[in-house]
Amino acid sequence: MKITLAHGSGGETTRALIDQLFVRQFTNPALDSLGDCARVQGFKRLAVTTDSFVVTPLFFPGGDIGKLSVCGTVNDLAMGLAAPRYLTCGFILEEGLELDALERVAASMAKTARKAGVVVVAGDTKVVEGRGGLYINTAGVGEILADFCPMAPGDAILLSGTLGDHHAAILSSRLNVQNAIESDCAPLHVMVQRLVEGGIRVKALRDVTRGGLATILNELAGTHTLRIEDAALPVSPEVCGLSGLLGLDPLYMANEGKMVAIVDGRDADKALDLLRTSPYGERAVQIGRVTVRNEAPVVLQTALGGSRVLGVLYGEGLPRIC
Amino acid sequence: MKITLAHGSGGETTRALIDQLFVRQFTNPALDSLGDCARVQGFKRLAVTTDSFVVTPLFFPGGDIGKLSVCGTVNDLAMGLAAPRYLTCGFILEEGLELDALERVAASMAKTARKAGVVVVAGDTKVVEGRGGLYINTAGVGEILADFCPMAPGDAILLSGTLGDHHAAILSSRLNVQNAIESDCAPLHVMVQRLVEGGIRVKALRDVTRGGLATILNELAGTHTLRIEDAALPVSPEVCGLSGLLGLDPLYMANEGKMVAIVDGRDADKALDLLRTSPYGERAVQIGRVTVRNEAPVVLQTALGGSRVLGVLYGEGLPRIC
Repeated sequence: MKITLAHGSGGETTRALIDQLFVRQFTNPALDSLGDCARVQGFKRLAVTTDSFVVTPLFFPGGDIGKLSVCGTVNDLAMGLAAPRYLTCGFILEEGLELDALERVAASMAKTARKAGVVVVAGDTKVVEGRGGLYINTAGVGEILADFCPMAPGDAILLSGTLGDHHAAILSSRLNVQNAIESDCAPLHVMVQRLVEGGIRVKALRDVTRGGLATILNELAGTHTLRIEDAALPVSPEVCGLSGLLGLDPLYMANEGKMVAIVDGRDADKALDLLRTSPYGERAVQIGRVTVRNEAPVVLQTALGGSRVLGVLYGEGLPRIC
Repeated sequence: MKITLAHGSGGETTRALIDQLFVRQFTNPALDSLGDCARVQGFKRLAVTTDSFVVTPLFFPGGDIGKLSVCGTVNDLAMGLAAPRYLTCGFILEEGLELDALERVAASMAKTARKAGVVVVAGDTKVVEGRGGLYINTAGVGEILADFCPMAPGDAILLSGTLGDHHAAILSSRLNVQNAIESDCAPLHVMVQRLVEGGIRVKALRDVTRGGLATILNELAGTHTLRIEDAALPVSPEVCGLSGLLGLDPLYMANEGKMVAIVDGRDADKALDLLRTSPYGERAVQIGRVTVRNEAPVVLQTALGGSRVLGVLYGEGLPRIC
């Protein structure tokens, strides 16, 4: 069975879709009342975020648009030192989308949300003409756990794992290349929580998504120079092979389950130990340090002792990667 | 200048779009930090909601997709007896969208948000292939002001104004019919706030959107019968004329600036006076009352003394009306 424009009418067909598919997957007291908005317990300080997901294909090795849409927003909250609490979901369905595919996506979202401890409290469905595609927006509300400390020279730059996995998985899927690469799509909030509980002085956090490591480091640098070591950057052999073949640079490739944490230099070893207690941070490493600003916001030290300035991503990257 | 896929890359072009267009329109301390999420003051009890907007055309008499996307979510919060506080915006842009059109939409959102007293604290932009279209998701966080009282026979059903205006405006615009009909797209939270401050015992609230009055009354009826008077239903002469011509029933046509309020029968006159103090409620009227359940959830009393059961909307309605 396929989605039709009637599924977006607001009438009987919309209601049947919501009751039989979404409510069944996401069941919880706030959602079950099906009013115009959810009424939930509040917190003293809130983190609020939103992200839309337009990835193609909808299903890819290591994940799908549903898992991605929950992890992406959970991670945005976590990167604000907040514990994720509530999610909203807005679905834009293209006519012709298979109901079965939508059900698999919703089930994947529900499963990921349960594992991440967030509750989907509100939703909306619209239908547009098209070719069976699907867009998802999630917005998230979290409880702020701690504040950031000011960044200073000597701080350590940590990376929670290998670069480029999501990008390489989506690309392999589109090119129909057979390999073992899977998207790293994962929730990062437990690692953040452990840093906070461990008393780590956190200076900045950012998940490595669109634009890649080089771009996000430029956004984090502020008035400092972030100096990273080429030799320290973890890239899996499969991603290294694929990106080499295609002339891509893992520094500009997207992940969906990796983060950069800038922490006080004295806390670096303890922070790495804490990150490594999570299955998503087993390969966490220090990749560089914060220095006083010299030539540029981000500088890469090469293995041969040279250095080069890393700019932000120019041009297109990989369209519809998330 | 037009939107390209590079505007969704996450790199330099995305950043320029965000800085030069969105941040300039929505400027506020939470958004200006441009982190992964906004950090804002919280409240004891939260209302959380989301809505996606896919209306075509993007600009129509009385409004545009930007104004609609703010009013829609502000109204969903208001219908939960909550004061709207924060909004998030997710933009999905189709390649080829004119930057100028996007700028007008963003300006309209910013103006509507300012007037409604809500702050846009987080945003996201994605670009997909397409034909220059635009989808907007907004999610809203509000502070709960009061609780609903349980509905009971004798309660009064109030309607804040004329039916079908938004539907008729969109339809006229698509058919290129010249008339004076404008969308009623408007924020309703001030009327709700006045009901709460006036001590009105509010039993239920719902804005009259997709599916029309008949559908939403069915959703509100619960275990009661809602009995409404055909003669009491306000419809403007222009909308009456257009819907008569096209064989449409205003009971199933959408508004974007009208609401149903079910209040204690003893508070009905006072509630109407309060609604009428708002420019969006000048034509508020009582349209019926809550009775014990007999044949159906919603019954229409005709002017000739007959009655008929009002079901929910079946089939398509008007696609992409909001």
